[in-house]
Amino acid sequence: MYRIDVHKIGQSGPGDLSGLKALIEAGTIKPEQIIAMMGKTEGNGCVNDFTREYTTVVLSQYLGGLLQLTPKAVEKRIAFVMSGGTEGVLSPHITVFTRVTADPVRMGPKRLAAGIAFTREFLPEELGRMAQIEATAQAVMEAMRDAGIADPEDVHFVQVKCPLLTAERIREAAGRGAQVVTHDNYESMGYSRGASALGVAYALGEVQRSQLSDACVLNDWKLNSGVASTSGGIELMYNAIIVFGNAAASPSPYVCAHTVMRDAIDARSVMDAIAGLPVPAANIVNVFAKAEADPSGSTRGRRHTMLEDSDINQTRHARAVVGGVIASVVGDPMIYVSGGAEHQGPPGGGPVAIIARTETF
Amino acid sequence: MYRIDVHKIGQSGPGDLSGLKALIEAGTIKPEQIIAMMGKTEGNGCVNDFTREYTTVVLSQYLGGLLQLTPKAVEKRIAFVMSGGTEGVLSPHITVFTRVTADPVRMGPKRLAAGIAFTREFLPEELGRMAQIEATAQAVMEAMRDAGIADPEDVHFVQVKCPLLTAERIREAAGRGAQVVTHDNYESMGYSRGASALGVAYALGEVQRSQLSDACVLNDWKLNSGVASTSGGIELMYNAIIVFGNAAASPSPYVCAHTVMRDAIDARSVMDAIAGLPVPAANIVNVFAKAEADPSGSTRGRRHTMLEDSDINQTRHARAVVGGVIASVVGDPMIYVSGGAEHQGPPGGGPVAIIARTETF
Amino acid sequence: MYRIDVHKIGQSGPGDLSGLKALIEAGTIKPEQIIAMMGKTEGNGCVNDFTREYTTVVLSQYLGGLLQLTPKAVEKRIAFVMSGGTEGVLSPHITVFTRVTADPVRMGPKRLAAGIAFTREFLPEELGRMAQIEATAQAVMEAMRDAGIADPEDVHFVQVKCPLLTAERIREAAGRGAQVVTHDNYESMGYSRGASALGVAYALGEVQRSQLSDACVLNDWKLNSGVASTSGGIELMYNAIIVFGNAAASPSPYVCAHTVMRDAIDARSVMDAIAGLPVPAANIVNVFAKAEADPSGSTRGRRHTMLEDSDINQTRHARAVVGGVIASVVGDPMIYVSGGAEHQGPPGGGPVAIIARTETF
Amino acid sequence: MYRIDVHKIGQSGPGDLSGLKALIEAGTIKPEQIIAMMGKTEGNGCVNDFTREYTTVVLSQYLGGLLQLTPKAVEKRIAFVMSGGTEGVLSPHITVFTRVTADPVRMGPKRLAAGIAFTREFLPEELGRMAQIEATAQAVMEAMRDAGIADPEDVHFVQVKCPLLTAERIREAAGRGAQVVTHDNYESMGYSRGASALGVAYALGEVQRSQLSDACVLNDWKLNSGVASTSGGIELMYNAIIVFGNAAASPSPYVCAHTVMRDAIDARSVMDAIAGLPVPAANIVNVFAKAEADPSGSTRGRRHTMLEDSDINQTRHARAVVGGVIASVVGDPMIYVSGGAEHQGPPGGGPVAIIARTETF
Repeated sequence: MYRIDVHKIGQSGPGDLSGLKALIEAGTIKPEQIIAMMGKTEGNGCVNDFTREYTTVVLSQYLGGLLQLTPKAVEKRIAFVMSGGTEGVLSPHITVFTRVTADPVRMGPKRLAAGIAFTREFLPEELGRMAQIEATAQAVMEAMRDAGIADPEDVHFVQVKCPLLTAERIREAAGRGAQVVTHDNYESMGYSRGASALGVAYALGEVQRSQLSDACVLNDWKLNSGVASTSGGIELMYNAIIVFGNAAASPSPYVCAHTVMRDAIDARSVMDAIAGLPVPAANIVNVFAKAEADPSGSTRGRRHTMLEDSDINQTRHARAVVGGVIASVVGDPMIYVSGGAEHQGPPGGGPVAIIARTETF
Repeated sequence: MYRIDVHKIGQSGPGDLSGLKALIEAGTIKPEQIIAMMGKTEGNGCVNDFTREYTTVVLSQYLGGLLQLTPKAVEKRIAFVMSGGTEGVLSPHITVFTRVTADPVRMGPKRLAAGIAFTREFLPEELGRMAQIEATAQAVMEAMRDAGIADPEDVHFVQVKCPLLTAERIREAAGRGAQVVTHDNYESMGYSRGASALGVAYALGEVQRSQLSDACVLNDWKLNSGVASTSGGIELMYNAIIVFGNAAASPSPYVCAHTVMRDAIDARSVMDAIAGLPVPAANIVNVFAKAEADPSGSTRGRRHTMLEDSDINQTRHARAVVGGVIASVVGDPMIYVSGGAEHQGPPGGGPVAIIARTETF
Repeated sequence: MYRIDVHKIGQSGPGDLSGLKALIEAGTIKPEQIIAMMGKTEGNGCVNDFTREYTTVVLSQYLGGLLQLTPKAVEKRIAFVMSGGTEGVLSPHITVFTRVTADPVRMGPKRLAAGIAFTREFLPEELGRMAQIEATAQAVMEAMRDAGIADPEDVHFVQVKCPLLTAERIREAAGRGAQVVTHDNYESMGYSRGASALGVAYALGEVQRSQLSDACVLNDWKLNSGVASTSGGIELMYNAIIVFGNAAASPSPYVCAHTVMRDAIDARSVMDAIAGLPVPAANIVNVFAKAEADPSGSTRGRRHTMLEDSDINQTRHARAVVGGVIASVVGDPMIYVSGGAEHQGPPGGGPVAIIARTETF
Repeated sequence: MYRIDVHKIGQSGPGDLSGLKALIEAGTIKPEQIIAMMGKTEGNGCVNDFTREYTTVVLSQYLGGLLQLTPKAVEKRIAFVMSGGTEGVLSPHITVFTRVTADPVRMGPKRLAAGIAFTREFLPEELGRMAQIEATAQAVMEAMRDAGIADPEDVHFVQVKCPLLTAERIREAAGRGAQVVTHDNYESMGYSRGASALGVAYALGEVQRSQLSDACVLNDWKLNSGVASTSGGIELMYNAIIVFGNAAASPSPYVCAHTVMRDAIDARSVMDAIAGLPVPAANIVNVFAKAEADPSGSTRGRRHTMLEDSDINQTRHARAVVGGVIASVVGDPMIYVSGGAEHQGPPGGGPVAIIARTETF
């Protein structure tokens, strides 16, 4: 079995590695044990957000030096998920996940387990379509095996980092006579996030193969996953998947749980999920949530203006709201809230995963 | 005594009067009884937000027609407070306050009372300085008398609408050899809101005259008011003040209360204030709050990026967060959250007023 | 025949009518002779730009009072074309076109003539499709007859104001089971502008009926018009058309001409068009141009970042550039540059019309 | 004497070094000869623009590997000037300046010479004040000596990269009881750019020591430099200076010249400067210009809205306009236009430097 450890590290900017370096130099984090890094960086979280790429570059160069690997090799070994946008009170940070072989435990509740996998590189015209859905589903099942989780019920959070279309990528496809799903760069992030989430739902049995088609992406909203969290990035052309759940024999000193916010102000569901933890709320290490502006144009029956604001993207509005609501419940603004929840939870809502420390071994 | 009534009306846009017209045509609202209208309009809430002015224009023209008054005369008779910015889930609306003479009541708890007053027109160079502070304090005391409230303890909310500096106003002052407090239009809104809030604090004994000077504005943050709510607008050059509180003999079927959020995610204070109401939470008509990015650069010890975001003004971030947090507590996104809480509550926090319906007459 | 007069009036804000009032009170402009008003207002020019609507409201109410008409009736009588966005040096203003019957002239060059027409109201699902193209083409031919222009060669500028899709309009259509061309509000402005421009091209023989279909809108860029200028607005659901050209017998003391900028920095074409005027450059009253970010992602072979900027809409970038370039040629920043040139001139470029005063009667 | 060479390299993003690598691998650029790199990166050019820092990091790491130096040592050896903001048609690129010892030439016109120098690190409270002015002036004189330019008349361009205040730096100073010039991060960039420009003007005799004081910064606009170009960056706390001019004995195959744009649409001055070059316009390698919104609120007597736009910073508007105007003259959008021209040329205008290739040796 594997023991998973989780470290949350604040950043003073997208290039700041001081916190990580301190933990590595202190021996608290062993570079060779790192399997994933999830960051909230302070860009706009949209197409021209280079803070995700910047943080990924400095992390892979720093760790490459320690691991005697090229930056590219580091990106293949560690799943970097950099989500842009720290609107409102959200605080830039990185969550580092490490994994090391350890003896399985005989008793006590199930505890945190994690596995990772990657899809092949996609062609621009495959984004937002069945090709992306199916490749993602396969990778999710690989990641479950990697984590030692057999039952989909024990999966509480599946993080996917997926590509987006740029003017250059659209031209490249057009040059081959291929039609991409949209010519709007920003919109392409939604298609890619949506198809990736449907891939997770398919892998976990939340939707059936027969319900899926190119046409249902960003269209048939009843198809969605309660544990998928997908975010787009300009820096990759494949999907990177991390599956988190609880496993019986896991020796990890953490547990995870999840809930689904029905809308952006559903603090109640988050309070209930925390109340359901086998440990006190003070043990919470981090919360991972998805946010989006309700596509109906209203929240609790009241019109919102997020979809018609041409100055601020709707994902920026949504992150600010959901970040504030969850921070007000857990009392900590250093949480992971990612924009764009297409096919992730119900329209206007989204999945929320919680990881907490536990003393019981 | 006066009976105060409160009506909250949603808008489909800054020019939408359909909801108001329906209530007036149904006889529910009598134009001649309107003393104040507080609106949340969907602009950026900053210097070039013309939605405040637009709504004020259509309201004053419509009501002028009914009252046989010029729009200017309507603006002198009714206090229009249009606060721009409906970031996140905040829903554009107008709250209409009416007042009519009625027999005082003999028993039961104190109930809602309201009074209004205006300062003289200011010169550009008076904004953000003692001249604005003192004129505001005098107007607050006038408004208390108008409301029939004698004890400052019974004042729960003082709304002030104040001017800002434009390039044109700065030139006009410079032409007279006068120095304005700042040449930055946006910054001028902060100075004007701050001086107005100190005027409220001075009138209510929250600060002493000896503590006040030009220098303390936007500088000595320990000086602030727990009930002031000030917002800037390009459309006026004087301060418009509305005082809300409870009065023993008031025949109004409403009560009001207030609290102070210590920071942007202080949901607890709002929950406590609601729990302290003599009526159920379901009776809440509207909540009036102020929001600002914590000037320290962090919230609960976690760095935020609102003050260094050159794409989105910090007031827009703050309204999105506080609007989401309060909406998650009251279950209604159609609330009044105004940006810029200089000298209104502690740094990073702000006053919150609640008006609720009561059955007991 | 008709005599056309043209007046350019600066504004201190979207609600400022002082310049217009002065000219009307001086008798220079006779309200009953006004046929069209083209304004540049200082909003973002995108979906939530309410400055267009605000200016239209104050103009129609003011003129309604003078003409004893309701605001709605004024909007049917006068073509209001309010284009949002005064990025860079562009200066907010209104151009007023008046028309009065006058004796035809026997000699001299052709001079300014203008005609207007309106389409029926569209259903949301008709926007961006053949229904909008054909209705526009019919209205353009009506407007030519109204102007007394028989030869399409004499048409130099066709201004169209067209609707856009809002969340509400999309819901309304969906309620009837109708599919709109896009669910993205902002994108809908492009479809509506594009279909309207193709309607102009069809009416003037720049494209043939057989080349047109729903599919060619925002797709087949070789189909475009060298004189169309279309801009979207949230305030109407029909197309308003104004045709400008030169007519032999016209007694108007103005001439017009046009050129097509091949890209955003094509100052040369504008210089040539001015050199070709039968009057000195100093006689130029106003310039009417369309601007767009080159959809290829580059200008003169150099990559631009306008299409991938999620903080500023590409139309805002394009107006700033083209406004600056034309202003540098004519020496006046108070010109009309409108964003979004879909099917208006070549990709990345756009039509430019010039109206100049002439002494020769 | 030194021979200076100039290479302009386009970028597909702030992390793209492919163009530079190709020239270095081809031997066209020798890393050890690089003295300066001036880049236009595609961020917002304001406080939270991390593209400047990102490009600097990848450049210093790549060159450090080639030069066997730490990134910090590279930054001390090479002057990195990364200016954010490629609004409108401006195209992201880097200009690389190399310098190598070569025999002086005996005849022909003066040719390009360049020298660099750095100030000490500043304390936050020194920014925007005399301490920064005087340290900058000393460094400019050092850089002239380094370039072999004795006569200030032969200086055509002085590029300064200067620091800005962040919330953290302001707190650090406050912790020592020191007062910074402003608490507004964005405003601090203007103070730092202004003081740096006055330092250049002082060094070149454009202003006298007796005219200078803390109070004149961003206040006495008649004090300015016709050759200074200063831009702020979050990544350094000292000023980096590069002086460009022509020297008699220079063996460089380039010449430089400069002009001053009187306002943002002054294409004429640029045309005249190009006409004055001893070589054809086609030989122009790059243009280096400063841009700002006219602080008077109008251009050529027409009101602009740049100073009152709370959605887009005025420097972004100004770069889009000046970039478009100069690109329309030279026919190339890949030019260097930097925002914020405080004390650089007249209010609303700015210095423009041109570097062109010459065949005559």
